[in-house]
Amino acid sequence: MTTLYDKVAFIGLGLIASSMIHAIRRDGLAGQISGSARSAETRAIAREDGLCDMVCDTAAEAVEGADLVVLCVPIGAMGQVAREIGPHLAPGATVTDVGSVKREVIAAVAPHLPEHAHFIPGHPLAGTEHSGPRSGFAELFENRFCLLLPAADADADAVARLRALWEGMGAQVEEMEPEHHDLVLAVTSHAPHLIAYTMVGVADDLRRVTNSEVIKYSATGFRDFTRIAASDPTMWRDVFLNNKEATLEILGRFTEELFALQRAIRTGDGDMLFDYFTRTRAVRRGIIEAGQDTAAPDFGRGAVLQGPSGGKDQDEDAD
Amino acid sequence: MTTLYDKVAFIGLGLIASSMIHAIRRDGLAGQISGSARSAETRAIAREDGLCDMVCDTAAEAVEGADLVVLCVPIGAMGQVAREIGPHLAPGATVTDVGSVKREVIAAVAPHLPEHAHFIPGHPLAGTEHSGPRSGFAELFENRFCLLLPAADADADAVARLRALWEGMGAQVEEMEPEHHDLVLAVTSHAPHLIAYTMVGVADDLRRVTNSEVIKYSATGFRDFTRIAASDPTMWRDVFLNNKEATLEILGRFTEELFALQRAIRTGDGDMLFDYFTRTRAVRRGIIEAGQDTAAPDFGRGAVLQGPSGGKDQDEDAD
Repeated sequence: MTTLYDKVAFIGLGLIASSMIHAIRRDGLAGQISGSARSAETRAIAREDGLCDMVCDTAAEAVEGADLVVLCVPIGAMGQVAREIGPHLAPGATVTDVGSVKREVIAAVAPHLPEHAHFIPGHPLAGTEHSGPRSGFAELFENRFCLLLPAADADADAVARLRALWEGMGAQVEEMEPEHHDLVLAVTSHAPHLIAYTMVGVADDLRRVTNSEVIKYSATGFRDFTRIAASDPTMWRDVFLNNKEATLEILGRFTEELFALQRAIRTGDGDMLFDYFTRTRAVRRGIIEAGQDTAAPDFGRGAVLQGPSGGKDQDEDAD
Repeated sequence: MTTLYDKVAFIGLGLIASSMIHAIRRDGLAGQISGSARSAETRAIAREDGLCDMVCDTAAEAVEGADLVVLCVPIGAMGQVAREIGPHLAPGATVTDVGSVKREVIAAVAPHLPEHAHFIPGHPLAGTEHSGPRSGFAELFENRFCLLLPAADADADAVARLRALWEGMGAQVEEMEPEHHDLVLAVTSHAPHLIAYTMVGVADDLRRVTNSEVIKYSATGFRDFTRIAASDPTMWRDVFLNNKEATLEILGRFTEELFALQRAIRTGDGDMLFDYFTRTRAVRRGIIEAGQDTAAPDFGRGAVLQGPSGGKDQDEDAD
């Protein structure tokens, strides 16, 4: 691989940043890597692990001389970080981010960047329920999508170089409009996360079913929700606060549909339920055919959990 | 292992029945296995694969001389099957089932069984999103819970023998009251499934986000829902119709909580969201500590999907 940037600066050193760093180093995509994190503990870990060539106490120091700056902080902190680094950016530097919401992040970041910098918002659709500087791994972006959201007048060379970096890390890059991005992600990510958080909260709250029962018998469906609901609280608070409109729209639709299904249950309308459940089954097939999930039963988690096929769930036999 | 039953009859030959058959044969837990399924296609497949020692066209023939009969049909068909087999049960035979709802199944089945038979309702908390006679595997019940729900006056020897069978197949057996079972399962399984079906239905319905976008970008959270929403439609229709009360109660609680979270988003109450998401994270830890799920990022699905760690999700870095 060719070196695409002389110096890449990461502001925020969690799952995405540390995964990018591992991937960039594996493939020699950048000359030098600097990093900075707000928490002293994160900086200490990064130094101990040698995560970056240089760990700086401030974002301003980290971006000094960098031709690429990657903002990997929670969405709510993006504006403040942009304000801090704006005056210190090298001429012609590219600034990108990895935030899960785009309209609000662009509105918060863009005003603080100098004319000479190229701001190209981004969003790698990758992650796990783990977080922190030790949760990253070089293969996180393999075959995953990374969305870039350049403005209409963005510098074509700067966009091409950033695209090459993501492709070098294994991602499939697509471009999208920020507003459409926020709606698509509200459907595929933000609403599902809020729903998962809610269901786990309900179970945790219910006095007539003990927590130990919920935990013991979770493999009947519930435990899939708990993985999503174990994602980073700060990140998700900021996602919802910054993608309000689209998330609330999708949740409104969700509630309408849920009421219709509840009504079918109450009135005993088995045909409606059967048809609905048949339709949703087809969506799963599409995802597997598109190579975006495994067809192995139960995500193949048995292979990791306890032998060849230890996954479990709720199902009995149709004959 | 000792042979626990001379002849076990399976009515319904889907995921659970075929998994039980593989496990019983692996460990020599029964002398002979007969089976029957309503669909001619299922019977033909079972015959072709040699799934049972004997595949019968009717349930009545299959139970002839059996000392254990396992009802593995959808919940809505349990009563009819019990009526068919009642007169043909051998003296002292044990009848069990694997239905995900207990109160209604017991009410539907018990009246059709003769005095001399021992009815011991059961529910193995195991399964995958796949169904049919070829979806079973012997390890499905390894380390999974199987709940037995004997009446207060049930025959102790018959219960002990059935317990030994489940333990022989690798399950951990616990006893529970039917009513409590239905509430616990409404929380851990039935409500989560309805919610997953609903979210997938909403995504499938939304005109402004194309289906191909939903599919391409599903790995940001949504795809976990699609696995659950790919479960057998007949089974799930029957679950909801037969566990109405508890499911609707939990869904009512869910809707209340969802409204509270939506309100927090609308009013920008970040503290409420942060606290909620922190609490739900702890539930996940409990499940992993109890050995009921893998701690590997993203269920370790990357190992199956595309290499050492190809899972993806929605996350960015907190610093």
